[in-house]
Amino acid sequence: RWRGSIYKLLYREFTVFVVLYTVLSAVYRYAEQIPVTFVLGFYVTLVVNRWWNQFVNLPWPDRLMFHISSCVQGKDEYGRLLRRTLVRYVNLTSLLIFRSVSTAVCKRFPTMDHVVEAGFMTPEERKVYENIRSPHLKYWIPLVWFSNLVAKARQEGRIQDSIDLQSILNEMNRFRTWCATLFGYDWVGIPLVYTQVVTLAVYTFFFACLIGRQFLDPTRGYPGHDLDLYVPVFTLLQFFFYAGWLKVAEQLINPFGEDDDDFEANWIIDRNLQVSLLAVDEMHMNLPHMTKDIYWN
Amino acid sequence: RWRGSIYKLLYREFTVFVVLYTVLSAVYRYAEQIPVTFVLGFYVTLVVNRWWNQFVNLPWPDRLMFHISSCVQGKDEYGRLLRRTLVRYVNLTSLLIFRSVSTAVCKRFPTMDHVVEAGFMTPEERKVYENIRSPHLKYWIPLVWFSNLVAKARQEGRIQDSIDLQSILNEMNRFRTWCATLFGYDWVGIPLVYTQVVTLAVYTFFFACLIGRQFLDPTRGYPGHDLDLYVPVFTLLQFFFYAGWLKVAEQLINPFGEDDDDFEANWIIDRNLQVSLLAVDEMHMNLPHMTKDIYWN
Amino acid sequence: RWRGSIYKLLYREFTVFVVLYTVLSAVYRYAEQIPVTFVLGFYVTLVVNRWWNQFVNLPWPDRLMFHISSCVQGKDEYGRLLRRTLVRYVNLTSLLIFRSVSTAVCKRFPTMDHVVEAGFMTPEERKVYENIRSPHLKYWIPLVWFSNLVAKARQEGRIQDSIDLQSILNEMNRFRTWCATLFGYDWVGIPLVYTQVVTLAVYTFFFACLIGRQFLDPTRGYPGHDLDLYVPVFTLLQFFFYAGWLKVAEQLINPFGEDDDDFEANWIIDRNLQVSLLAVDEMHMNLPHMTKDIYWN
Amino acid sequence: RWRGSIYKLLYREFTVFVVLYTVLSAVYRYAEQIPVTFVLGFYVTLVVNRWWNQFVNLPWPDRLMFHISSCVQGKDEYGRLLRRTLVRYVNLTSLLIFRSVSTAVCKRFPTMDHVVEAGFMTPEERKVYENIRSPHLKYWIPLVWFSNLVAKARQEGRIQDSIDLQSILNEMNRFRTWCATLFGYDWVGIPLVYTQVVTLAVYTFFFACLIGRQFLDPTRGYPGHDLDLYVPVFTLLQFFFYAGWLKVAEQLINPFGEDDDDFEANWIIDRNLQVSLLAVDEMHMNLPHMTKDIYWN
Amino acid sequence: RWRGSIYKLLYREFTVFVVLYTVLSAVYRYAEQIPVTFVLGFYVTLVVNRWWNQFVNLPWPDRLMFHISSCVQGKDEYGRLLRRTLVRYVNLTSLLIFRSVSTAVCKRFPTMDHVVEAGFMTPEERKVYENIRSPHLKYWIPLVWFSNLVAKARQEGRIQDSIDLQSILNEMNRFRTWCATLFGYDWVGIPLVYTQVVTLAVYTFFFACLIGRQFLDPTRGYPGHDLDLYVPVFTLLQFFFYAGWLKVAEQLINPFGEDDDDFEANWIIDRNLQVSLLAVDEMHMNLPHMTKDIYWN
Repeated sequence: RWRGSIYKLLYREFTVFVVLYTVLSAVYRYAEQIPVTFVLGFYVTLVVNRWWNQFVNLPWPDRLMFHISSCVQGKDEYGRLLRRTLVRYVNLTSLLIFRSVSTAVCKRFPTMDHVVEAGFMTPEERKVYENIRSPHLKYWIPLVWFSNLVAKARQEGRIQDSIDLQSILNEMNRFRTWCATLFGYDWVGIPLVYTQVVTLAVYTFFFACLIGRQFLDPTRGYPGHDLDLYVPVFTLLQFFFYAGWLKVAEQLINPFGEDDDDFEANWIIDRNLQVSLLAVDEMHMNLPHMTKDIYWN
Repeated sequence: RWRGSIYKLLYREFTVFVVLYTVLSAVYRYAEQIPVTFVLGFYVTLVVNRWWNQFVNLPWPDRLMFHISSCVQGKDEYGRLLRRTLVRYVNLTSLLIFRSVSTAVCKRFPTMDHVVEAGFMTPEERKVYENIRSPHLKYWIPLVWFSNLVAKARQEGRIQDSIDLQSILNEMNRFRTWCATLFGYDWVGIPLVYTQVVTLAVYTFFFACLIGRQFLDPTRGYPGHDLDLYVPVFTLLQFFFYAGWLKVAEQLINPFGEDDDDFEANWIIDRNLQVSLLAVDEMHMNLPHMTKDIYWN
Repeated sequence: RWRGSIYKLLYREFTVFVVLYTVLSAVYRYAEQIPVTFVLGFYVTLVVNRWWNQFVNLPWPDRLMFHISSCVQGKDEYGRLLRRTLVRYVNLTSLLIFRSVSTAVCKRFPTMDHVVEAGFMTPEERKVYENIRSPHLKYWIPLVWFSNLVAKARQEGRIQDSIDLQSILNEMNRFRTWCATLFGYDWVGIPLVYTQVVTLAVYTFFFACLIGRQFLDPTRGYPGHDLDLYVPVFTLLQFFFYAGWLKVAEQLINPFGEDDDDFEANWIIDRNLQVSLLAVDEMHMNLPHMTKDIYWN
Repeated sequence: RWRGSIYKLLYREFTVFVVLYTVLSAVYRYAEQIPVTFVLGFYVTLVVNRWWNQFVNLPWPDRLMFHISSCVQGKDEYGRLLRRTLVRYVNLTSLLIFRSVSTAVCKRFPTMDHVVEAGFMTPEERKVYENIRSPHLKYWIPLVWFSNLVAKARQEGRIQDSIDLQSILNEMNRFRTWCATLFGYDWVGIPLVYTQVVTLAVYTFFFACLIGRQFLDPTRGYPGHDLDLYVPVFTLLQFFFYAGWLKVAEQLINPFGEDDDDFEANWIIDRNLQVSLLAVDEMHMNLPHMTKDIYWN
Repeated sequence: RWRGSIYKLLYREFTVFVVLYTVLSAVYRYAEQIPVTFVLGFYVTLVVNRWWNQFVNLPWPDRLMFHISSCVQGKDEYGRLLRRTLVRYVNLTSLLIFRSVSTAVCKRFPTMDHVVEAGFMTPEERKVYENIRSPHLKYWIPLVWFSNLVAKARQEGRIQDSIDLQSILNEMNRFRTWCATLFGYDWVGIPLVYTQVVTLAVYTFFFACLIGRQFLDPTRGYPGHDLDLYVPVFTLLQFFFYAGWLKVAEQLINPFGEDDDDFEANWIIDRNLQVSLLAVDEMHMNLPHMTKDIYWN
């Protein structure tokens, strides 16, 4: 009898409560869920595009070194010096940019002393470089040297004519644009408020889950509900899912750090110097003997 | 007894009401929510793309100054005057564009007097500039001077041949396209009706929340509901979320204002003038002595 | 008693009906809603992209006029005639395209007589133009004249060499591509069936609302429901929202009409002719005297 | 009494059934609906982009014909033959590509005989063409002839210098890239499995509707439900909506068929041949007399 | 009586349970469903774009072979050797890249011996190639040879002037960029964590379905529910749908494998060598006799 009476007294309120409660809980489960998915979708797409564009704009001196190797003439010492210096200026520019952009490179070359020591700059160049008074970044200085040096080389006949000169200058400008683009991506990031909105949305969503689902799972022991109760499988899955997606973004947002997945800027610097010196010096006009290939006639 | 009878009389209507009410409230909560998320997603993507394109199209004279420094010859006064004037015309063009586009630059250079005072234009140039009768914007005038001046320089032998001339003209046209693109983004914004639809959608959504949730939370004190009742956590989170996203858009829609996050057009103008004059004058054919690098052989 | 009995008889059916009804109404409210939002999102994005691409491809003769002004030599009458004619051919081409594309321009220049009267074409050119038998659009004819005229100018020494000639031809081709792109956007619109699906989806959605919500809002006067009943606030908001979004698309789908927000093709035509004639004639080799700028040394 | 007892016996099960049933039906209505919308949105966007890119890459000889008309000299018969042959090779290339790509063109030119008959190829060229042994597509052959013929024309002095030659070669390569792009779109379509997934998703969705809604609409005659029962308005609307969207995709996926909305490849072929022969032969150096325009001074 | 009493004892709890249960099951059905759809949509779009970009960047030597065929002169043996060697270097470069990128090509050419045997490299070239000490990939070496060989050819008068030389170098650089882009796509894939999140999301979703729907479908035999119970039609459809979409991505993520749908890199290698040798050797200056076409006058 006791049970019957208390039920009689309360069952209407109780029904109302339960209906309201489940509907409400369903509602706010959705409410946060859908925006989080969407905003993550748009945000991750933005981040992935920026990341790939930075990869595409990594400065490789290959195009330029082919031109220098074929159009700056002379196997004598002066010719070699000319080609090596041109290539070194280009590598120096990308090094200066990488120092601003990448923490790993900045650690390896904390001061201009390290840049000189590593052979990217001669001590004399450093003196000239530091005498140029400008309150702004000075990564464009080696390229002014480059463009004047090729002009001088044309006047000395080392570069045959203006066509060759302009090709080299155009490739240099292409290289500069890569550098400037990388710098631009570093300088102007995704608007901070966008990142904050996304991050806070995801974390408050989880906070809401933590609280909301506790309320939903009282110790009354509804049958069939245990699956999610004792081991909150689906909440864990969602946590894994959203946090994973956010991690994708966080990992890609600064691709010049020191993580495993970041672009290895130090390796790029070494590879570029080694390969480009090889191509313009040792391999200049050092052709294998031409013989007939096996499909001749 | 009184309670029993009133319940008996009303419980059917009451149940119907409660069910209908919760379903309805759930419905319109969604109804507004999903479109708001979507339209914000598409709109913010559009705004972010426009914002980044404007950044990419900021006019930098670097490419052009390398060409001028290497291809316009002569260390004498006339040569210096030629190179400085060419570079000044280019900087003048970008200044004229920035005056139309950026409120910060417009404040700094409200009249042509300020432009002349700041050294971007000589008084005589100003007279010629103002004598040209055109009802349209006149930012193209310095570039006509530029193109005629390089043609004159070629005829005087200061620019060696047509190849060098055309390279310089092409880079000038690239610079002009950057300027025109910035101007285009300022001239033709996102269609006003799109911005209005989005803004109104977000604000009416909040208005609906304010009213709708008041109705939903009567003082009857349903248990388990308090969390959202006394401190409307989720409503606040959503407010934070949508308003934050909308703020992202509002902040980016005009990147040439005077906010902290806007592009610093005044800094760009100063940097460009200083750097480009340095590159074409002081640094022209002023090369560091070439010495063998440390990897020689 | 009467009330009690009818309730007893009907309350089961009634409950079933109400539950089913609300669920169903909720369902179809969603059912139509979500697709409408989505399809509008994708459609509007497509339309906005097309609209902006048309803006970006508006034909401006500025790049070309710099080249003509600097590379087609001679201040005598023949030189002036040459430069003015070249520039006129280019403006004529864009006028012919705008006549096909824009209703406003078509109204202003309904026949070739109007084109001749407005000074874009001489009567003799018109005769030659109309003697060329081709069943296809003839906007390419002035450009053939242009390319042959520059070739003639090179042979006469008015254009110094092939480099200058090719630069001018390349810029002309760039201009032509802008014209052809505009024409392409006009010729091949968004597939009609896509526009029809979107428009019909939006309007049938509203029709469904009109009917469905009438059924939902009987005169039984459920409490707490009045807000949406007497003044259908949320239905109105949705109407505003979707119709506004669709209007964005409708306004942008043909940007060459006569609305306030359309591109002012007639203004562009006038501006281009005035500015380009000015640049190649009055301003040709008409340079301000070079003086030292205020930062000299 | 009979009614009362059966109700007493069944009403609990009945309520459970109805609640479960409506919830379930709501659930799977959504379940299929949302993915279909999404996948259609992404798929249609992909298809529309491919379709528009194919339009943008249609090969037009206009750019090339301006260069040929202005840079290949000589009004004598040999000069005319040279220009006509060059232009014919270009048109032949696009015809060979269109034959692989478009069913309409393939029907009109089923064999090489038809190509020769239509005047795109001389009988002798056909012999040379067929003597070249290659297991691969041979649309590049006329372009090898083209490039060798312009080289020959330069050596004979018909093309003045290498600058003109290289401009023509570059435009030819641009033309070739258009052709190759069209061929690429035909060769590598949207991955079949993607199209299958989308098509099957849409059709199984309708199948599910057909069955599911039959179950939902028994003949018990629930009031207020008739609207969707006797005339399944919303199901029909959805059918119209999704099938329409899918039709958009199907119509655009192969734009070179014989439908009304497809690109008229045959018309393009005729137009290109007629216009380009006109431009390089009849109109070569056939300029209208230059007279002063009406704005002179 | 037994039935009545147990029902009286349990029906309230039972109702509460059923309502809660269905709502909950509906909720988590959604919960997982919507994110899966979304994330798949964004992910598949990313994968399809990468896949198409790789197709667009396949290295074809056609543009280059036209230039070599028309600008490297001499029908004697030395001229033939020159052109064949240049073309071979280009094909060698793409082969070296394909060996890094494609498993099928790697199987066919596991060592440099196979490359020499297939005629892409002479034994002497191999010796030079292997003597160049570099810890990095060496695919750029044949291009350094290429650029030096064309420079040599210009000095020997086989290439007429710098214009022709620079055109060839530019086309070579374009070819190199295609190779480097392919290599870049292979080197830097989609971030692994992204792929993992998507794959795990889809598979845990199915796992959740398997478990969740078992709970939902007890053997109590609710009527009207059988459709999905005995043959889980909708679950199967969804499985087909999501797994199909994921398969699209998996198939496209590495387009250089050995599946039927992958790009046939081996065929491309063979086609390119055969066609390009044909174009520069057999077809060099081997023109069909020019005759008047049928539209002459």
